[in-house]
Amino acid sequence: MAPVKNGRLLFNEIPEGFPEPGKTTVYDESETIDLDNVPLKGGFLVKTLVLSNDPYLRFNMRDPKVESYSEAFHIGKPIVNFGVGLVLRSESKEVKKGDHVYGLFPFSEYFVQEKFDGFRVLENKEGLPWSVYVGVAGMPGQTAFLAWKEFAQAKKGETAFVTAASGPVGSFVCQLAKADGLKVIASAGTDEKCDFVKSLGVDVVFNYKKTKTADVLAKEGPVDVYWDNVAGESLDAALENAAKHARFLECGAITGYNGEGAPVKNMVNVFAKEIHLYGFLVFTLLEDHADEFYAEVPARIAKGEFKYIEDIKKGLKWAGHAIYEVQAGKNHGKSIIEVATE
Amino acid sequence: MAPVKNGRLLFNEIPEGFPEPGKTTVYDESETIDLDNVPLKGGFLVKTLVLSNDPYLRFNMRDPKVESYSEAFHIGKPIVNFGVGLVLRSESKEVKKGDHVYGLFPFSEYFVQEKFDGFRVLENKEGLPWSVYVGVAGMPGQTAFLAWKEFAQAKKGETAFVTAASGPVGSFVCQLAKADGLKVIASAGTDEKCDFVKSLGVDVVFNYKKTKTADVLAKEGPVDVYWDNVAGESLDAALENAAKHARFLECGAITGYNGEGAPVKNMVNVFAKEIHLYGFLVFTLLEDHADEFYAEVPARIAKGEFKYIEDIKKGLKWAGHAIYEVQAGKNHGKSIIEVATE
Repeated sequence: MAPVKNGRLLFNEIPEGFPEPGKTTVYDESETIDLDNVPLKGGFLVKTLVLSNDPYLRFNMRDPKVESYSEAFHIGKPIVNFGVGLVLRSESKEVKKGDHVYGLFPFSEYFVQEKFDGFRVLENKEGLPWSVYVGVAGMPGQTAFLAWKEFAQAKKGETAFVTAASGPVGSFVCQLAKADGLKVIASAGTDEKCDFVKSLGVDVVFNYKKTKTADVLAKEGPVDVYWDNVAGESLDAALENAAKHARFLECGAITGYNGEGAPVKNMVNVFAKEIHLYGFLVFTLLEDHADEFYAEVPARIAKGEFKYIEDIKKGLKWAGHAIYEVQAGKNHGKSIIEVATE
Repeated sequence: MAPVKNGRLLFNEIPEGFPEPGKTTVYDESETIDLDNVPLKGGFLVKTLVLSNDPYLRFNMRDPKVESYSEAFHIGKPIVNFGVGLVLRSESKEVKKGDHVYGLFPFSEYFVQEKFDGFRVLENKEGLPWSVYVGVAGMPGQTAFLAWKEFAQAKKGETAFVTAASGPVGSFVCQLAKADGLKVIASAGTDEKCDFVKSLGVDVVFNYKKTKTADVLAKEGPVDVYWDNVAGESLDAALENAAKHARFLECGAITGYNGEGAPVKNMVNVFAKEIHLYGFLVFTLLEDHADEFYAEVPARIAKGEFKYIEDIKKGLKWAGHAIYEVQAGKNHGKSIIEVATE
């Protein structure tokens, strides 16, 4: 077979505010790949099926001199994030042709992966859509499930507050908190998102753009467990309305990614209320708990125990637009890029 | 014996900034007490010997409608804080005449304590000065010793950063960190205070009013254990220069007590570096560990293992001035009010 087009989404320049499609990222079709003959160097050739689009990507669009938990993107190279793909050829002993693999993918239609490290063959006995494996059964689901288990110390009758509650992490956390018998307060940024969160059985749902978070928490709190996806003003409101011995799960800070987030004024509450704040990264939690997650969660999703919604863009060329939408909060559900079907 | 004068330091009005002697607090000599005949109601009569003057007192000079971990002072009533006194008479089965007791005292020369709860009879087999029992062997020492044990998770070769390092808490923490084999960076607000901290064997000492904390930490960090007595700018610098998996011991926030402290801008580091922040109050730690503390620490102080300095004001009438000095950082060593000798 002759070489085929290999579309890629390239990182083009470090953004100052929101990442603009065509400027921050550029879709490129100049590369071709010979699927039958491209050298595998002991690795395997992957056809990308789905790619995940997560808030933290903005954090990697930085000056590579600034070190952090995940590698900065390189100008002129593809964006990188979790994906699921089909193995077309393999020289690796860990994977064979026809396997489906999960791992950190370059945003390209095809790629050769030399090392298996960090990849996983998905069995998918449940027959879930592959998109689920980058959502509620992928990194966001792992974040919610493993960190809730590790840090929430949830007790029946307590109150949880969850931000970005319609997203794949937040919506999963809401359901875990309800399952543990907590009263759940949750915020999202559009009425449509709030409707979805309400459908999860959450007790108090509000649109933080219309109602002040501090007012809701003053009325419905105090908060024993705070799931922080946003930092800034919501974190300040949670500190002010925290219960004694509250646990704060510091998962992300999207309000700070696209420029300076609101500074936090209420840190005095941390000692006065004996609050513990747990910063965590899913990568660390996975070191010990990955098998446990895959053994339990996909099966429970298949049984309908955990609800989720997806916002799927078809075609890699729309990935830059999808990235912008997630940063601006314009997506509705877990943002997925469907690159190809099998 | 005829009634004697019973001097008291009264809380007079809620301050907006620093607590001013004669305005925020007023020394009052209008009360008398008949030491032989004052009814004890099943309690005991105490002659106050020493009173502690701690930064957190400012936190209690608030509108009593604002609930917090310790009771707000009441206008027209004495300031309350830890003290050591001599029991003159007793109807209580827990204490007898001649005992020395430690507990929360009203700032008055004499008082009747009806309930023993929260008080402790000090044996003082070591013959330490009573002032030590409100300092390094009292609440500040308990704060340092018990929280370091509980939360620091210190490992030899790591780096600690301690703020307010010449105070009774900070200076004890510096010594505990050195004993655990850590490199210790410490800040204080005058060169004289820095000299004392240096004498404790601390590796890097700086005057934060002359040198930028962020610059020192960028050069000498990253910080694995941060002891936060101050919040604001120092906390921000520590977040920026934290090591992965750093532990922050959130002990106090003096920069926020006398007006609005600097808001914290770098909270994004909490999740990105997987930092854990532990807010705590010594009262909670004491519930399980008080006996352990008294069994170990006074003896080690007597052996000279832990150094401390005291700033003693003689006479209750100077207590209001002493309170101002601590809030303004003008004291040098643990601030003590010596009310009487035996």
